[in-house]
Amino acid sequence: MIPTLAINRGRLLGEIEEISRISDVPPPAVTRVVYTPIDMRTRRYLQGLADAAELAWSEDALGNWFVRLPGTEPELPAVATGSHTDAIPYAGRFDGTVGVLGGLEILRTVKERGLQHRRNLELIMFTAEEPTRFGVGCLGSRALVGSFPLDAMRALRDDEGVSLDQARAAAGYAAALETVELSPRTYAHFIELHIEQGGRLEEAEKAIGIVTAIAASSTVRVSLAGDGGHAGTVLMPERREALAVAAELILLVERTARAHVEADGVGTVGRLQIHPGASNSIAGSVELTIDLRARETAVRDTMLETVHAGLAACAGARGVEVKWELCNSDPASRSDPVILESIARAADALGHSHMPLVSRAFHDTAFMALRFPTAMIFIPSFRGYSHRPDEYSSPEDIVAGVETLASSLLQLAGT
Amino acid sequence: MIPTLAINRGRLLGEIEEISRISDVPPPAVTRVVYTPIDMRTRRYLQGLADAAELAWSEDALGNWFVRLPGTEPELPAVATGSHTDAIPYAGRFDGTVGVLGGLEILRTVKERGLQHRRNLELIMFTAEEPTRFGVGCLGSRALVGSFPLDAMRALRDDEGVSLDQARAAAGYAAALETVELSPRTYAHFIELHIEQGGRLEEAEKAIGIVTAIAASSTVRVSLAGDGGHAGTVLMPERREALAVAAELILLVERTARAHVEADGVGTVGRLQIHPGASNSIAGSVELTIDLRARETAVRDTMLETVHAGLAACAGARGVEVKWELCNSDPASRSDPVILESIARAADALGHSHMPLVSRAFHDTAFMALRFPTAMIFIPSFRGYSHRPDEYSSPEDIVAGVETLASSLLQLAGT
Repeated sequence: MIPTLAINRGRLLGEIEEISRISDVPPPAVTRVVYTPIDMRTRRYLQGLADAAELAWSEDALGNWFVRLPGTEPELPAVATGSHTDAIPYAGRFDGTVGVLGGLEILRTVKERGLQHRRNLELIMFTAEEPTRFGVGCLGSRALVGSFPLDAMRALRDDEGVSLDQARAAAGYAAALETVELSPRTYAHFIELHIEQGGRLEEAEKAIGIVTAIAASSTVRVSLAGDGGHAGTVLMPERREALAVAAELILLVERTARAHVEADGVGTVGRLQIHPGASNSIAGSVELTIDLRARETAVRDTMLETVHAGLAACAGARGVEVKWELCNSDPASRSDPVILESIARAADALGHSHMPLVSRAFHDTAFMALRFPTAMIFIPSFRGYSHRPDEYSSPEDIVAGVETLASSLLQLAGT
Repeated sequence: MIPTLAINRGRLLGEIEEISRISDVPPPAVTRVVYTPIDMRTRRYLQGLADAAELAWSEDALGNWFVRLPGTEPELPAVATGSHTDAIPYAGRFDGTVGVLGGLEILRTVKERGLQHRRNLELIMFTAEEPTRFGVGCLGSRALVGSFPLDAMRALRDDEGVSLDQARAAAGYAAALETVELSPRTYAHFIELHIEQGGRLEEAEKAIGIVTAIAASSTVRVSLAGDGGHAGTVLMPERREALAVAAELILLVERTARAHVEADGVGTVGRLQIHPGASNSIAGSVELTIDLRARETAVRDTMLETVHAGLAACAGARGVEVKWELCNSDPASRSDPVILESIARAADALGHSHMPLVSRAFHDTAFMALRFPTAMIFIPSFRGYSHRPDEYSSPEDIVAGVETLASSLLQLAGT
């Protein structure tokens, strides 16, 4: 008999609506950058919900937030779910929040019903899944599994020069970073519920995506230094233009990704700042980021090499200096077969159609997978829109996703 | 007998040094954007100098500043000099300030010595020569000669949406814009002293550049709208990338300018902002400026057409929407032969080497020329650097320029 759980749909949907208004920009756009006042308000809001449900919670030195519902055998490794609530500038309402509020709803409902489960059930809200502020995504989950050297973490700074340590201390997280890493015995299983952020479920008319793997991903920060000067007086033959190199790089990234479409290769220049930034001034320097991904680690590595070599050649030809800083380069990860089966059984028991998917977006699960058995559940995204204000997932799809997650967690926790 | 004037060199150089520290960024960089508190402090500083010298001054509705030294026949059209003190972000210390403080020094010295001159001598400090805030350069001088429709001027807004009218009112300039335009009888001659912002004087080892013409110049503001989305999940074939169009445009501007090097064609994308600006997010929109110049108006027009048509084709092919907004498109201007002769005589009398030059940078003189006989005097710029913190002109060259200007003004004013 597959355990299932009918959640309080109105409560969950109301909270997803409510949290979307905790944002630095007007609705429906959402901006929540790690350790800003808006991020802290979001955390207080979630803590208030857990307190109201009388669920115990704790935070670690990075602000990763853990809500615990003890099972009948609390000494066993727990079964966990979780996601994030931070959001890039002008993002949408569902990325991350569905997994956090959905997980909280499951813990609350299980507690309210007094359902038996052997293993502890846990919800994690990961700090800084988005790379917006410090240039590296999944900071919280990387630290939990010890995959980010602490020295490198301490060296992180935001655009204003504020270090990660200063920022977390200002947010009230003062404990040593050494205390964050988790033992491999902490979790028996981890499942993240998330919106697809792509259009495959919608196209296939399936309610549930069972994520079998997460694509390899990397982010590079590039600084280009040429000569500035007056736009009218420095003649074309005298120029060393950083922005022209940036332009060639943007097109090179695009060409490289297109050459690997068969492996879902994608390449994006998502940030770009030019200095000094006046209409009658040649840009003396340009800073930008490159995001490269592919289903296979080897393909992503090839793309990185192609772009790196091509940039060096084009900058060299133009006399522009290049600083190439690899912020992260993470391998593709595979899901745990036991969890995948539990998700399929859950969806079948609840009557939801499902299909296997590879996640091309990056998730905390990619790092949790380095230490724990993991998998993900995706629900459809309207037209695949994500990281934009019109991101949308229907109430029906959200509830289906949360109830599938609930059944899967209960199967894995044991009754 | 050519009249000459030995200025107070120490006083002038000290003031150039002092004004450079009135800046929104640390020295040697200078940022002074129109109507900001720093711009207003600069104006108070200059007014204090004029007051100390007991020189009468007035301001118009845009903040153009006029200092007057009456001649023996004050009813005649005056002889004027002038330049600007606003500065683009992270600019240098000499662009504009040499002409304003140099002109002030001349008026002070003529007054102190009680030198006779028939026509009034005037100094003008023009408001907003730089286009930084409102996207259009030479706002003050355009308005003085009635070359900018007042409705268009009222429609100007900065990046924060503040209108020119709101900004000037906040700075204390509340009079109607209709009062700014000058009668053609106001000035008999206008001469601007300025740094070259190029390397031709240095290369030719000449002290004085006599500007015979100013190149045609235009600025375009371009908005590109494609689709945003998640950098990992939107596959390459599904994208409509605004930034890729921007990259092609940057290279097209460069190619177009290079095709017209024989006419000193230059093309620059000096501002570029992408939205939302997160490393894992596709830029949904891009805003940028294009600055195109050439010695001949017709060449500049051809360049504009080439870039406009090329952009339309490349954006069309990629499904990206384009907004093309021509902020200004000003013809090349020619100097007045009488003034040119007076400058050459002045330099000869003072023993300064000189050469004729075409100005490729844009100056208020280009607009004053639409209504008054004008010319410019250039002094050498170290390595041609300008619009950057290491912009430099030597004390000797500055003094030579100011004394050449003084002699020329006195010749034109009549004794």
